Order: sequence, then structure tokens, then C-alpha cells
Amino acid sequence: MQRPCARQHHMEESETESETDSEPESMRCISCKVEYVTRDAGTCKECYEEASETEEELKREIRDLEAKVAFLKLCSPTDHQQQQLGGRSGGSGFTDIVLVAAEDGPDGGPSMPVPAHRAILANRSPVFKAMLENEMEESRSGTIKISDVSYDALRAFVNYLCSAEACLDEQMACELLVLAEKYQVEHLKAYCEKFLVSKLNWDNSIVNYAFAHQHNAKLLLEAALSLILDNMDKLRKCQEYSEFVEKHPALVVKIYEKCLAKQENTAAPKDTSAKT
Amino acid sequence: MQRPCARQHHMEESETESETDSEPESMRCISCKVEYVTRDAGTCKECYEEASETEEELKREIRDLEAKVAFLKLCSPTDHQQQQLGGRSGGSGFTDIVLVAAEDGPDGGPSMPVPAHRAILANRSPVFKAMLENEMEESRSGTIKISDVSYDALRAFVNYLCSAEACLDEQMACELLVLAEKYQVEHLKAYCEKFLVSKLNWDNSIVNYAFAHQHNAKLLLEAALSLILDNMDKLRKCQEYSEFVEKHPALVVKIYEKCLAKQENTAAPKDTSAKT
Repeated sequence: MQRPCARQHHMEESETESETDSEPESMRCISCKVEYVTRDAGTCKECYEEASETEEELKREIRDLEAKVAFLKLCSPTDHQQQQLGGRSGGSGFTDIVLVAAEDGPDGGPSMPVPAHRAILANRSPVFKAMLENEMEESRSGTIKISDVSYDALRAFVNYLCSAEACLDEQMACELLVLAEKYQVEHLKAYCEKFLVSKLNWDNSIVNYAFAHQHNAKLLLEAALSLILDNMDKLRKCQEYSEFVEKHPALVVKIYEKCLAKQENTAAPKDTSAKT
Repeated sequence: MQRPCARQHHMEESETESETDSEPESMRCISCKVEYVTRDAGTCKECYEEASETEEELKREIRDLEAKVAFLKLCSPTDHQQQQLGGRSGGSGFTDIVLVAAEDGPDGGPSMPVPAHRAILANRSPVFKAMLENEMEESRSGTIKISDVSYDALRAFVNYLCSAEACLDEQMACELLVLAEKYQVEHLKAYCEKFLVSKLNWDNSIVNYAFAHQHNAKLLLEAALSLILDNMDKLRKCQEYSEFVEKHPALVVKIYEKCLAKQENTAAPKDTSAKT
């Protein structure tokens, strides 16, 4: 903070002007406390103070929202179930319906029912809402059967509907995305997509591209496609290519179309100049 | 902070020539685009850029949290009830219990039941949880009677338990604070306290002070007490004073104790010097 003054003292000592000779005047940054020269100047003091206040306000808002989320989260009924050592559903979690996975149970046996709340299911998913409000078979029997899903994924699904939280790996993210798509739980679908995008790499890009297409996951589709387009030289050489062509020819066509469109776009200015 | 330097500039000016003649070098603030001089400098460019990124991140976090809150909010069962034109509880809101206010109903008639979900009540309030899990009378009958509360407040209470939202005025905030205290819903209690603190003024400070004391609302108590201590000259002259002394003598004593302690603290240095 005192440095600039100290420097001027020295200059006065040497008694002539020369000031312009030297470095541009330096200042000390209020934030990082490091000296900088005019060309590295950022904001004025007033804007710095305003920005600090804004940051404090935003942090307060985040704390408030986090408290709200904590308040609104529902303790998962499967936790209650476990506390009761596999006790019957409808125990202390006040559940009033069960979901049953068509696949195997946790240890290969018949699938354990996952207890849930009608109110929560209907609130989070328009599909469950229609199913339950219209007194369909599921509503009358109090059991919703769900095919093509593991018990663990179904449990994680119900947990997410209660708490907006899930512990994901790639397998789980895919299973939950499928459920989210089927039952129109947009928040969960976006959550899974973001996770899968963060795990994208060349090795899983083709699988993810096909998966995203099948389940209408646009964010993941775009990200996977973009990764494939950046690695077109590897595409035909990779192991899965022939299987991919066989299973999803239309998707492969789309990749080539996009690739050519991209080339044309890049090449366009050159072509024009060549013609003129 | 930069003042001494500015003064040195003047000294140099009188001695020598040029450049120092002019104002200190000016810069343009990256944020507000206004020119400023060295003494008004805030941050370096790097810190400005970092701060901007941080702000963006915080805003993203807020958007995510807001989406989470929207996802977790439960559509209030009283909305369902109204949609059904006063239809029976347990309709499309999948409610499984009703709360009944001991006071009058909305138009002076007998109180209408407010439908609710056992799972939500038990999740948000340890008192409801104990009541419902232990199969007490309320749990068996499916009706929880709540005394000393208006129908409107009870409805707002259930809504808040579902959505973490309430439309407050001072009357409603007081009623909800009482319910929140009784059923140990900390989030709602803090919400009401904050609202009441924001509405504090000299005219309502004594009432709020007594109210806060009665319902163990520490934030409100401190704020009201501090306001009273700042206006001690008005205290004995105000209308409610004699009634206040009669009803809450211990609270009045506390005010005087605090007032004297404050005076002693302020006067302490003076007294010492007077003695020496």
C-alpha cells in the first residue's frame, strides 16, 4: 500500500523528475493485496465494494435456499423400512403404496417392494399422478409394478422423489434416466444427464450417443455427438463401429451428415474466395 | 490511502515540470466504465475476473437450488380441497389425516378440517412425529385438534409444511410463530421471526418484546429489546407502559437492568478518569 510513495521518495531523493522514465504508477489491489500497474487495473473502489456486497447477498441467498431444501426433503421411506429390519411397508414412514421391480431382488431373490407415498409420486410425476388419480389397477391394489429396472435403481428412484438426491455411478445414472424419462420426472432426468455428460469420453461416446437418442436426452446427445465429431478419424477404426452401424444405421448417417455440414461450414469462406 | 502520494505529487509539481502537472493518471473501471484516479482504484484485472466468475457460479448455484426447491415443494392439499369445491378430504391430494382448528371456521361457522399428509407432518415436526408414530388418539382417529388457532392460520401452517412458503402479515406471522413453536417447526419459526423483526418499530416494540419472550423467539426478543433500549426516554410515557408493568413486571425489570448495564458500560472510561 505504501510502496508507490516509497518509490516516489526515492525519486525525490535523486532530485530530478524522471517520473515518466519509470514504470507506470502502481497500485495495490484491495482484494489480493498485490501491486499492479495501470494496464492491469480492474475496477474502481466503488464497484469493488458493490461486488463484495453482491457476493455476500448471493451467499446469504444460497444459505437460505439450502435451509429450504433441507426443510422440504422427505426422509426416504426405504430408510424407515431398513430401520425396521425389513418390516412391512406402511410402517413409520406413513407410506401408502409400494413399487415393485420386475427384476431380481437385492440378493437374487424375488424383488422386495419399495414403499412410497402416493402424494409424493403424484406430485413429482404426471404419469404417476394420472395413474393414481384415475383409480387405475395400480391405485386400487396399492402396488405399481415397474419392468426393466433393478431393485437398487427403483429404490434410488423413490429416494430421489423424496429428497432430490441420488448417489450416482454411470450404471445408476442410466437406469434412473430411463425411469425419469418414463415417468416424466424432468428434474431427475436433467440431473442424470449432467452426470453422464461429465463422464463422457471418447470410449463411451458412441454408447452414450445411442443411449441419449433412445431416451430423448438432448443435452447428452449434443455432448456425445460433438465429441464424436471431434474424433472422426477414430470413428471407423473403433471396435464398436460395425455393431453400431448394424444396430443404429440412422444414427451413423446423422453423424456423417453433421460431419460434412461442419466441413462445409468451415470451408465455406475459402470456397467463395476460390470462385471469385 | 493514496492521499500522501497525492500530496507528494504537488510537491514535485512546484519543483519540476510536466506530467505531474496533470491530475493523477486516470483509468477506466472495467465494471462501471467510468474513469477513476489512482486513489479510487479497487482491484486488479485478475481479481475482477475471478470475482465475476465467482458471481456467475453463485448465480448458477442459486438457479440449481431454486429448481430443487420447486421440485421438492408439495402441492398444498388445501388447494386440492378447494379445486374440488369443498369436496371431502383425502381426495386428489392423497391426504390421510385432518387438522381441525378449535376456533371458528372461515365464515364464523364450525371449523373446516384442513387435510394433510401424515408423512409430511411427521417429517417436518418432531411433535407430530411422536404423536403419529406412537399411535395416539390423534393417529387412530385421523383427526388432530389444534386449539387457539384460526382456520386461516392452520391452513397456512399446513401449506408451509408442504411448500416452505407463506403469505404473511403481522397477525399471521404471530399465529404461525405460535404454531411453529408448539410443533417445533424451526424453519417456520425463523421465517416468522425474520418477518416480525423487519416490521419492528417503536410502537410495536413492547408488544413484540413480550410476545417474543412468551414464545421463546430469541431473534425477535433481542431486536425488540434493543429498540426499547434506544428509546428509554419514551418508555415511561407510552400508553401501554402501566399495563406492561402490571402484566410482565419481570420483563420490565429486565429492560431496566439492561439499560443500566448499558449506561455503565458506556460511562466506564469516564468514571475511571474522574476517580483518578
